[in-house]
Amino acid sequence: MDGLTEKKIESTEIFKGRVVHLLVDKVGLPNGNDATREVVRHPGAVAIIAVTEDEKMLLVRQYRYPLDKIIYEIPAGKLEPGENPDDSAMRELEEETGHQCEQLERIASFYSSPGFSDELLNIYFTNTLTNGRQHLDDDEFLEVYAVDLGEAVQMVRDHRIADAKTVYAVQYMQLKAMQK
Amino acid sequence: MDGLTEKKIESTEIFKGRVVHLLVDKVGLPNGNDATREVVRHPGAVAIIAVTEDEKMLLVRQYRYPLDKIIYEIPAGKLEPGENPDDSAMRELEEETGHQCEQLERIASFYSSPGFSDELLNIYFTNTLTNGRQHLDDDEFLEVYAVDLGEAVQMVRDHRIADAKTVYAVQYMQLKAMQK
Repeated sequence: MDGLTEKKIESTEIFKGRVVHLLVDKVGLPNGNDATREVVRHPGAVAIIAVTEDEKMLLVRQYRYPLDKIIYEIPAGKLEPGENPDDSAMRELEEETGHQCEQLERIASFYSSPGFSDELLNIYFTNTLTNGRQHLDDDEFLEVYAVDLGEAVQMVRDHRIADAKTVYAVQYMQLKAMQK
Repeated sequence: MDGLTEKKIESTEIFKGRVVHLLVDKVGLPNGNDATREVVRHPGAVAIIAVTEDEKMLLVRQYRYPLDKIIYEIPAGKLEPGENPDDSAMRELEEETGHQCEQLERIASFYSSPGFSDELLNIYFTNTLTNGRQHLDDDEFLEVYAVDLGEAVQMVRDHRIADAKTVYAVQYMQLKAMQK
């Protein structure tokens, strides 16, 4: 034994929704005691760093109900059941921004909040945008903006950009600019 | 109206746990239709980029039950009820790593996953570590490591570092190193 791993003893399904699935599990700890773990299962998501010909990043401005706030984020969305993340990224980019792209590179994958959720976020990069057609979900309302890197850095500072994936995206673009 | 904001019509509490609180709300959309929103309320968290005298970052290696994986993360933890994030960061740093510090600077705050959760992650930086005493929670098992920046970048590449806050931390240290 590695002295770290926990073992599932019992799992209780609390809720199975359209987005999240909540389980409360009883687990065996490395020291032989029991504990309870609350687990939010999530289908996973994609997010796209999309850079225009004039080197601006696409951002979408949208209301986030859990925060009761309007924030700016890179285009993103949940995986559909059985959907490949690469296909999902292509789909979300066009649905939200009205752009398709010629090439899309997966640059990172990370867990949003591994303490309570298995949500894996796949991050993509493209600078080969072409025209497509915006077509939002029935319950989706957003505005599309293109900002240059200096502006994006300022938006992180003043919290108009306030989510993990978009802060990551801005740092990614800063590192890319400095490595040129 | 801004054409983006959603209005709460009705809120149903599904679960109130030790970590998460799940609500399913009926909301009014900007176009007058209704929709359902699943919301995971979370107390918020802190994470600390802690740099040693020889310029290594502290990482904790721990099993994450939702992932069924052992990963490396920067020291982190949930806010206790009514706790100030600054105090929480000092507390978690010592509890998990056995180090106190002289100065701790809040460098960023962002939402982990604003589509379904209000978890706000407060990120701190310190390079003024002093000795303290490690004292883990009863159900917490982890190992502490110190890695240099090159190693940390490699760990992101090979997914031993696989969570948003720690990927952010590595980028932050890369930017800091390049700006020197």
